Amino acid sequence: MKLQLSQDELEKNRKTIRKKMQQDEIDALCLFSSRGIFYLTGLYLIQTERPVGLLYDGVNTAAFVPALEVEHVKELGGVDEIISYKEYPGEKHPMKILAEKIENREVRRLGVDSDGYPGGYGYEGPALSDILDLDVEELPKLIENIMRVKSDEEIQLIKESCRWGNLAHRYLQDYTKPGKTENEISTRASLDASRAMLKTVSDDYYSPKGATMPASAGFRGQIGKGSAIPHALTSNKTIKEGQVLVTGASANVGGYVSELERTMIVGEPWDKQVEFFRYMVKAGEVALDAIEPGVSFADVDKKVRDFYREKDLMDYWRHHTGHSIGFDGHEAPYLDRNDDRELKPGMVVTVEPGLYVPEFAGFRHSDTVLVTKEGSEMLTYYPRDLESLIIPVS
Amino acid sequence: MKLQLSQDELEKNRKTIRKKMQQDEIDALCLFSSRGIFYLTGLYLIQTERPVGLLYDGVNTAAFVPALEVEHVKELGGVDEIISYKEYPGEKHPMKILAEKIENREVRRLGVDSDGYPGGYGYEGPALSDILDLDVEELPKLIENIMRVKSDEEIQLIKESCRWGNLAHRYLQDYTKPGKTENEISTRASLDASRAMLKTVSDDYYSPKGATMPASAGFRGQIGKGSAIPHALTSNKTIKEGQVLVTGASANVGGYVSELERTMIVGEPWDKQVEFFRYMVKAGEVALDAIEPGVSFADVDKKVRDFYREKDLMDYWRHHTGHSIGFDGHEAPYLDRNDDRELKPGMVVTVEPGLYVPEFAGFRHSDTVLVTKEGSEMLTYYPRDLESLIIPVS
Repeated sequence: MKLQLSQDELEKNRKTIRKKMQQDEIDALCLFSSRGIFYLTGLYLIQTERPVGLLYDGVNTAAFVPALEVEHVKELGGVDEIISYKEYPGEKHPMKILAEKIENREVRRLGVDSDGYPGGYGYEGPALSDILDLDVEELPKLIENIMRVKSDEEIQLIKESCRWGNLAHRYLQDYTKPGKTENEISTRASLDASRAMLKTVSDDYYSPKGATMPASAGFRGQIGKGSAIPHALTSNKTIKEGQVLVTGASANVGGYVSELERTMIVGEPWDKQVEFFRYMVKAGEVALDAIEPGVSFADVDKKVRDFYREKDLMDYWRHHTGHSIGFDGHEAPYLDRNDDRELKPGMVVTVEPGLYVPEFAGFRHSDTVLVTKEGSEMLTYYPRDLESLIIPVS
Repeated sequence: MKLQLSQDELEKNRKTIRKKMQQDEIDALCLFSSRGIFYLTGLYLIQTERPVGLLYDGVNTAAFVPALEVEHVKELGGVDEIISYKEYPGEKHPMKILAEKIENREVRRLGVDSDGYPGGYGYEGPALSDILDLDVEELPKLIENIMRVKSDEEIQLIKESCRWGNLAHRYLQDYTKPGKTENEISTRASLDASRAMLKTVSDDYYSPKGATMPASAGFRGQIGKGSAIPHALTSNKTIKEGQVLVTGASANVGGYVSELERTMIVGEPWDKQVEFFRYMVKAGEVALDAIEPGVSFADVDKKVRDFYREKDLMDYWRHHTGHSIGFDGHEAPYLDRNDDRELKPGMVVTVEPGLYVPEFAGFRHSDTVLVTKEGSEMLTYYPRDLESLIIPVS
């Protein structure tokens, strides 16, 4: 069972880019982003202080990697050629080695996703435009913009991600009990779901971005009062009766991800918890009802905000309705009242309006939703109702 | 038990930066990197499409965050002020809100670690220099360069990281058995070490960068033939007799990390395995012997390469001897024959010369080493000898 983009799809991607290059009169493209390299080749390379990149002239692809990645790339395949350098910093700067290779190809106009390797981990290096005697055209959003509308294969991978995220979340809920700690529950759930996934699809499963633990579920500190802080970087809380929990689950399938989040309540919910839970679920329905092709991302968010205002809930608003998703966990466009871009069939978004009551609790479900010709299809399928999300005590 | 930088240390850091600002005649500093924000405040904020940053005028610190982070920052503390914006994209671009706040402070010369929010997740936004009518001075390496020499507190946190990395690795070795899979072993080892760490230091332990699973150990696909590929992004292999395994362990302690890697062999080693293992251990000793203040990073790597050449091992060379470490897993300078920077007391480096035999196996130990006034101190303390690293079969 192969859960990766097919060679046909990658060939189609290269064709799309070749066409763009011809339109823009670009002779070669040099990409440093993981996304760009992946889109054209299916390869995913770790970015450290050692520069990695991809050169594409419309016909051949050449990976640009340090010596320590050469055998890795050969094994993975997906490129026609490998341009390698010994090490970073190196006797000659790796970017100069790359620049020479580009100059040898008689390129007049080079497209780049960033003017030089973006770096990190202490990397320092020149802009390509400073060391190349040719036109360098920055196209930072070239691949990102194309990838906004997902292909059928991409949608299949995202659906498969929803399936294994769902299992991880099911285990997470099953293992959640008062007295258990956050990391015990989430590790066990993530391991069990990942084991099931790997045993189902293949023991030798490979996925871009790594696949030791392809499926995962957890709380990220959103436990009890912590649930009121959407990006709590967790301490390791113990589950207690009366708490509101906000979860998160996903799976990496062929480099693609989905997002499933649920609000769970430990024991019999209090009235105030029930009230906010119901408003949050209703806000999600408002958003889901609004999603269809031709509508703007802004309009969906505006409807949710209208609902919040109508119910006098704006004090508990902390963020917009959702974001696009697929290759990255967050992508543009956003379901935000100031994002006027248009929903199109094949786009995939999260729907996750939340309510946050400081020093009390936070309430958020997140679902992954495909925009279809007819309207929308919810790809995640975990129960959204309160009764299904109560953790029994006793 | 508090495993974080103290308020005194953070105050000292701000003083150091204040002095630099005065020297460079900079009125205010705007930092977007996690490292910069952390160095001045101890805060660690998730970077998404929503810009986050820190403004420092030499007296007060102001965190720049979206609405959804306001309560989080208030709870964590560490800043004098919060500049918040509703959402990204927002009616007014968040960077314009930040720019107005900067202009209100009558800044003539602004230092920045990047000219605008570096972004990711689909973020788009202006350079600060394009929307501010004042001098913008890019100082991308300001904080990084200062943090090369670690303070006593930082060294204590790195030592504490070595302790819990050691435990994670001990469990990893204990749980490694033929027939077990990579993710079963590494998850169990990481969970058990993290639980022990959290129970030892405090159930309410908070660490920058998150702390659900503060200690971890694993293989990252470096199993059997995969061990010959240093950055193998793992598939999920099953352990078998006769395999060479290359491991990795660390722990996040107050935002600081260490690196411990070992080569283990499953069952009685073959002669060829023993031979490469011994050469690799010897190469590490050559490097360790060479480390002392005043020596260049290059010199250490040159000695290792001399040893490789002497033993005719250059065919199996794939990378330099090591890198600095502390806040990031890889930092500059590097133990690389082309890095002429000088080793100084308080610097912390990894020592990890490796040997890689394609289609056979890879051999690498990595230790975290402190440069001292007298020479060096190995902070990791896991056994390095072959006998201690054989996984019994039967």
